[in-house]
Order: sequence, then structure tokens, then C-alpha cells
Amino acid sequence: MNDTKIFLTEAEMPQQWYNIQADLPVPLPPVIHPGTKEPIGPDDLAPLFPMGLIMQEVSQDRYIDIPEEVQDVYKLWRPSPLIRAHRWEKALDTPAKIYYKWEGVSPPGSHKPNTAVAQAFYNKEEGVKRIATETGAGQWGSALAFACNLFDIECKVYMVRVSYDQKPYRRIMMETWGAECIPSPSDQTNAGRMILERDPNSTGSLGIAISEAVEEAVSREDTKYSLGSVLNHVMLHQTVIGLETLQQFEKAGEYPDVVIGCIGGGSNFAGFAIPFARDKIVDGRKTRIVAVEPAACPTMTKGLYRYDFGDTACTTPLIKMYTLGHDFVPEPIHAGGLRYHGMSPIVCHLYEQGLIDVEAHHQNPTFEAAMSFVKAEGHLPAPETAHAIKAAMDEALRCRESGEAKVIAFNNSGHGHFDLAAYEKYLGNELVDYDYPEEKVKEAQAHLPDVE
Amino acid sequence: MNDTKIFLTEAEMPQQWYNIQADLPVPLPPVIHPGTKEPIGPDDLAPLFPMGLIMQEVSQDRYIDIPEEVQDVYKLWRPSPLIRAHRWEKALDTPAKIYYKWEGVSPPGSHKPNTAVAQAFYNKEEGVKRIATETGAGQWGSALAFACNLFDIECKVYMVRVSYDQKPYRRIMMETWGAECIPSPSDQTNAGRMILERDPNSTGSLGIAISEAVEEAVSREDTKYSLGSVLNHVMLHQTVIGLETLQQFEKAGEYPDVVIGCIGGGSNFAGFAIPFARDKIVDGRKTRIVAVEPAACPTMTKGLYRYDFGDTACTTPLIKMYTLGHDFVPEPIHAGGLRYHGMSPIVCHLYEQGLIDVEAHHQNPTFEAAMSFVKAEGHLPAPETAHAIKAAMDEALRCRESGEAKVIAFNNSGHGHFDLAAYEKYLGNELVDYDYPEEKVKEAQAHLPDVE
Repeated sequence: MNDTKIFLTEAEMPQQWYNIQADLPVPLPPVIHPGTKEPIGPDDLAPLFPMGLIMQEVSQDRYIDIPEEVQDVYKLWRPSPLIRAHRWEKALDTPAKIYYKWEGVSPPGSHKPNTAVAQAFYNKEEGVKRIATETGAGQWGSALAFACNLFDIECKVYMVRVSYDQKPYRRIMMETWGAECIPSPSDQTNAGRMILERDPNSTGSLGIAISEAVEEAVSREDTKYSLGSVLNHVMLHQTVIGLETLQQFEKAGEYPDVVIGCIGGGSNFAGFAIPFARDKIVDGRKTRIVAVEPAACPTMTKGLYRYDFGDTACTTPLIKMYTLGHDFVPEPIHAGGLRYHGMSPIVCHLYEQGLIDVEAHHQNPTFEAAMSFVKAEGHLPAPETAHAIKAAMDEALRCRESGEAKVIAFNNSGHGHFDLAAYEKYLGNELVDYDYPEEKVKEAQAHLPDVE
Repeated sequence: MNDTKIFLTEAEMPQQWYNIQADLPVPLPPVIHPGTKEPIGPDDLAPLFPMGLIMQEVSQDRYIDIPEEVQDVYKLWRPSPLIRAHRWEKALDTPAKIYYKWEGVSPPGSHKPNTAVAQAFYNKEEGVKRIATETGAGQWGSALAFACNLFDIECKVYMVRVSYDQKPYRRIMMETWGAECIPSPSDQTNAGRMILERDPNSTGSLGIAISEAVEEAVSREDTKYSLGSVLNHVMLHQTVIGLETLQQFEKAGEYPDVVIGCIGGGSNFAGFAIPFARDKIVDGRKTRIVAVEPAACPTMTKGLYRYDFGDTACTTPLIKMYTLGHDFVPEPIHAGGLRYHGMSPIVCHLYEQGLIDVEAHHQNPTFEAAMSFVKAEGHLPAPETAHAIKAAMDEALRCRESGEAKVIAFNNSGHGHFDLAAYEKYLGNELVDYDYPEEKVKEAQAHLPDVE
């Protein structure tokens, strides 16, 4: 048996992030100011973000140095292992070789600190003392709480209520790292109060929670905003995952035929897949790159590629992306981190350019795949990650039919230790596979801003 | 800055466990049959354990091969990293160098699968189809559930009620790996029913849960019993931790001055410390080796070194060990894995021989130390492990006073992802530091069997 885990030394850890904007055949559409309908400039974003991050958002530099202070924190858990799923291959009786990148080894338990640490660093550099953010499943909130604690920045997290109620341990974890965490919609912002007036029992959504955090950042001199996905600089920071994976495959003497990640806002998928997308664009590789979303929130497979707000209260700039409509509130599926109406513009653009495929899957088959993985490999994945596992399993089973020994790689983006209530529901046959809410989406999309 | 993590390759993983019985200056006292008061033989243990494990229990061989099937499973997470706590050293402003062995990377989240996998393997070898066990905090139960699933063995876990109620996620994790988990005391055994008659609200204890699991194994032809600590073969399997650590220190060009682990039944401490104890015995090293227990269950610091039963219902053989009395039920501290009246005979013997020191600490200072560690290093430890962290912190602070640059190593035996309710109580000033229950211990010790 070959090695199960492929490690890199700390000296081999990437010292630069890769910026795919430098290699895109067609540039990204500009971000638009909702008032002027003109492309926005750095100054428009200055109330929200430190200039270091704003410049990364629009940078065309191919490689950007990872600051030493950020590398030092990464070393608490990075480079993360790439693991060959020998036992799962055997259980699936497939000739395919399955590898997974294991991001669950970070202290907050997911890939999210890759960008949280960088964002906290650049905020600290510019003297920021306080950051507000939102979180869905709690992985982003934990990661930012962890990072802010290390750089001595105050942290306030608006957590989507359905996850706040389902996952109390995530809240305590944030509090342990010194952050304040409250359920969203809350009565602490105009955006939150407006939603609660309409629906006092609102389960919340990422779009609403973003509105609340943005409002707090805009209305308080001492506070900036931080986003855990969607934006270009977030995708940039996450490329450390894919860059490590490329080196690990080189050590293993392989190159993946299929590269898979789940998508909510797009960051773990993009971070994992972008270096492989580069190889497709620049070196003409034929890799199949697959993004996987929940059928209950099918942004890419059912959304429109249009300019839309990133949040529900229409306070953000307009972004060209696949969208279900900024006031679409998805059903309370357990993959809370994937319940977002929009998507990273980079991920959308790669899809438009035909560089990636997208699949949507329901909760039950997704958990079924996760269980198959857990029983063979042990490591318990988050429900979000389970979507990638479902696609990897389908691919491996197709290889069983065809006899092909494809190399399949997926990003195991985080552990499910705080999602065991969801596993319990799956085991008790209580999980609902929600039908596609066609009417609700149509209604939300009727409110799209009128910008082409 | 030097490397933060010291890794071994899979090829460097130990291929043999180390059996300290071969090097003890004085042999271990025999285990006694409670009826005949004579030393027991292998046949006496045959209803409980497969012969492969019984022979390891009494083996005098210095090294015992780790079966290839067990090594293959270990490779899902081993070798585990040894991590230099650069940030914590800085936070404590100490000249000491602090290293921790990080066992939280295993799928069940602690060191426990090191022996669970071995035990499942030897049971499987001898055709065992079903295993019953107990668990305190749930780490052992999860580990055995994980291991039994991999070797296709049915698994039944009696979980101490206080932990069962405090930590529902641990139960679900066991169920996810296919085990059955019920709270102890239960009405499924005579031992459990007897306790419930006396005290229907019993919070349970490891001693009671052991009685239930042993009773089930003895009364069912198809079922063996498995213990996650205390016994010699368990300590043996855990030496993989310390053997890796020795190699990692060699790579780092250091040798620890102080080696620390927490003790409940003794397995994570012994697994970590025994290879260093060997160096003391055989090579004359001067290492300070420290075992740390909770002040609310001070087996070593307040117990008697006497023959006692391993369980509450007096069904096990008699073991010479430090004991608070087999019917002592500790207060419901959050370090559920340390709530045991007895202790590994090997650990007790090393203490008697003057080879190790023992400290006891209360919950609040222990959590305070854990918080200091978490804020600096990120990784969130289990409340059990926090006891080792407390001792490491005290040692580092003494170095700050003395100016000594000691090398301190502790076993970070597991993560605290399922213990966040305890962190919440600590943060809310709700944790109680229970006084030493002198009267209760005296009463329990009055029931010690009359064997010298």
C-alpha cells in the first residue's frame, strides 16, 4: 500500500497566493455602484475594508506574497494533509484513485481561517480595532473569531438564526476566542428589525446577516466589515489549498482527472480548484472541475447570471453573479454554509467560460455519501463538504461501471463535529429533501436591480 | 522561527509497541482472583478478552509488533504532529520551550483509537462478533465505535449518565459509526438496576459503567468486553504516542526536561510518558515526568495503594492500584474521562518506584490554563487534557521566574469540540471547584477488599 497521507514540510508551504485574474481569458465584469450604475473604485469600498484588501480585490498581479505573520499562523495547522482514501475506494469497489485535501485540521475546523487570518492581518496593519461579520453554519464566524483573537481585534458575529439554534457549540467556540455572537435577524440593526417586522419567526439567511454586519460597519467609525466568501480577495487567500494540493500530487506522481468542491459562496471550491483551472487555461490540461451545490439553494443551476446585491437589504455594491434573487431565503437545510442566494463572481465567470461544471444534490443522498465516507475513512465531514463527497462518490461509481482508473480529488473542507444533530436526523430518516421553490425564486428574481 | 510542527513520515511510524514490563526494576504485583485470592491466570480472563490481548497483558517481551492491519488504520491520522507552542511561550513570556503532541487529529478526536483499533483487531482475529464497553466523557466509546466499524464488529457502549446528558454529540458520533450507546446506570443489567434502586438520580461513574459492560460480556456468549484504560495491554498500545514523540524530539535536536500528561485511568499519560520512563530506568535520564489528576477525583494524591476492584459491582479481578474505593462516585466535573476511582497499575507502580510525580488541580484553574493555551495556539483541548496544560503552564511560569529554558512536553490528548458546554460554564463563572470529599472517600475505602 502506498502512503495514505501526503505531507508537505513547512518550508514547502506556498509563500504566495495565486491570483487567477492575471490569467483569465476574459476579464471579470466590473462591480457596479447601485446609485451611479458606474463601476466602483477603491474609495467606495473604504468604509468596509482596509485598503490592503481592496487592492487585492482588483489586483491583476499573478502572485501575491503571503505576509510572514500570516504564514506563521498558517503553520499552526498548514500545510494540511492530502489523504488517499484507500479504504473508501475499496468500499466502493472502484478502480478510481480518490484523494482528499483535509482542511478540518485547522483550529476552527475548516478552510475558513486561510482568509480570516489574512483579513485580520491586513485590518490590523491599518489600525482597525473592531470587525463585524456574518456567519451561516458558524465556520466562518469561528474562523474570524480565531483570527481576530490572534491579532487582538474585537469581533462581532451575526449568525444566521437557524444555525445559531442548531449549533450552539459554534457560538461558544466563537465566545471562547473572545468574539460576540448574536442571532440574525437581530433587533440591533435597521436591516434586522425590518426583516423581523415582516416575519418575527424568520430563520434568517446569509443575505440578511450580511446586511446587518455591513450596516454595523458603515454606521460605526471604529468597525470594518469582513466577508468569508464571494469576494475576489477571499478566493485569492484560499488558493493556498490548491497550491499545496498541486505540490502534493507532484510528490505522489499523479495529476487529478477530476477536481471537486462544494459551493455556497464559492471559497473552498475556488481555493482548491483555481490552481487547476489555471493549468486548464495556461497549460491546456483537460481536468474536469466540478462545483457542487445543494438542490434547495441551486444558485448556479437555477439562478440567473445578472447584477445583484450581495445582501438582502440592498446595501452592497452590485455584483455580476448567478443569483436566486437577493431576498430569496432558502429552506433550513443543514448545510447552512451553502444557503446563499449569490456566488463568487470568479466561480460564476469560470462557469460562463466553460472551465467548470456544476451539479446540485439533495440532502439525503448527500448524507448517504458522507456516511459511506465516514464508515470507511473515519473523518466526519461537515454537511457542506458532504456535497463534494457525493459528487466524488458518483464519479467513483461511474469508474466502477466504465473500469476507468481516474484520479479523483475533492476538498474535504471541514469537519462535522458541530453538525452531529444533522447526522442524527439523517440516521432517524428525518431529513427533508426540499423541492425546488420555483415560485419563491421567481418572486425574488423579480426584484433584481435593473442593470445589464 | 524554527518549524512549528515536527512531522514523521508514515515510513517512520513505530512498527512495534514498547512494553515497559521488560524493563521495570521491580515487577508489577500480580492481579488477584477475588474468590481464591490467588494470582489469576489467562483462563480467568478468557470470558472477557481474546487471548491475543490477555497474552499482551502479562507479556514480558520488550517490543511487540504492531500488526500491519493496525498500522494501516493508524495511517488515517498517524504519525500525529509534535507542535512547538511558539505563540503560547510568547504569551506566557517564558524562556521555556513548550512542545505538545497533538492526538486530536484522529477521527474520534483523541488518543483512544490507538488501543481501540488494536483491540478490535485482536477480537476480530479470534472471531468475536460483538463487544461491550463503558465510556466516561465519550472519547473511549467513540474510539471503540470507530474501530469496531472498521473491523465489522457490533459495539455496545454504556456511557456514564452525566456525560451522556452533557454531551449528546458524542452519542450521535458513536451511532454514526454504527454503535449502540445507552446511559449508565441503565436498567439493562443487574449492576445498573441495583444502583438505580439505591439512587434513581445517580449521575453514574466509570466504575458503575464498567460493571454493566462486564456483566453483559460475561452473560452473553457472543460478546467480549473492552476497556479503554487501566490495563497493561492498553498502556502498551498507547506507547505509539511516546515512541513517535521521542523520534520527533530527535529530529528537533531536543530532549524534554519535563514530560506531562493527565490521568484518569492512565492511558494517555502512560502512552506518552512510558518511553521517557524507559530512558530514566535504562539510560539514567533525569526527566521530570508528571501525571496530573483532578482535585475532585484525586486517586493518586489521596488514594490508598491497595488491592481493589476495577468496578463498582465487584465483578472484576483485584488490582493493586491507588484507589479511592470502588464505590466512590466523584462529583460531576467536566473532565468526565478522569472520574475513575482507580488507576493503571503500571502508572501506580512507576509512582511507587519514584519515577513519576503527581499533581492534582481544580476545574477553574485548569480551564484558565486551557483558555490561555487556546487563545495562543488555537486548538481547543478537552477538559481532561486541560489538566496537563495546567501543569505545563505552571512549569513554564516557574521557568519565567528562574530564567531556565527548560524543554516542556505535554500530551494534548484530545480536542474539546464536544465539551464546549463546559467552556461556556467556565466563561460564565459557573464551574464549581469541589472540595475534597474526605468523608465520602473514607466510607468508600472502608469497603476495600481485605487482600494485601
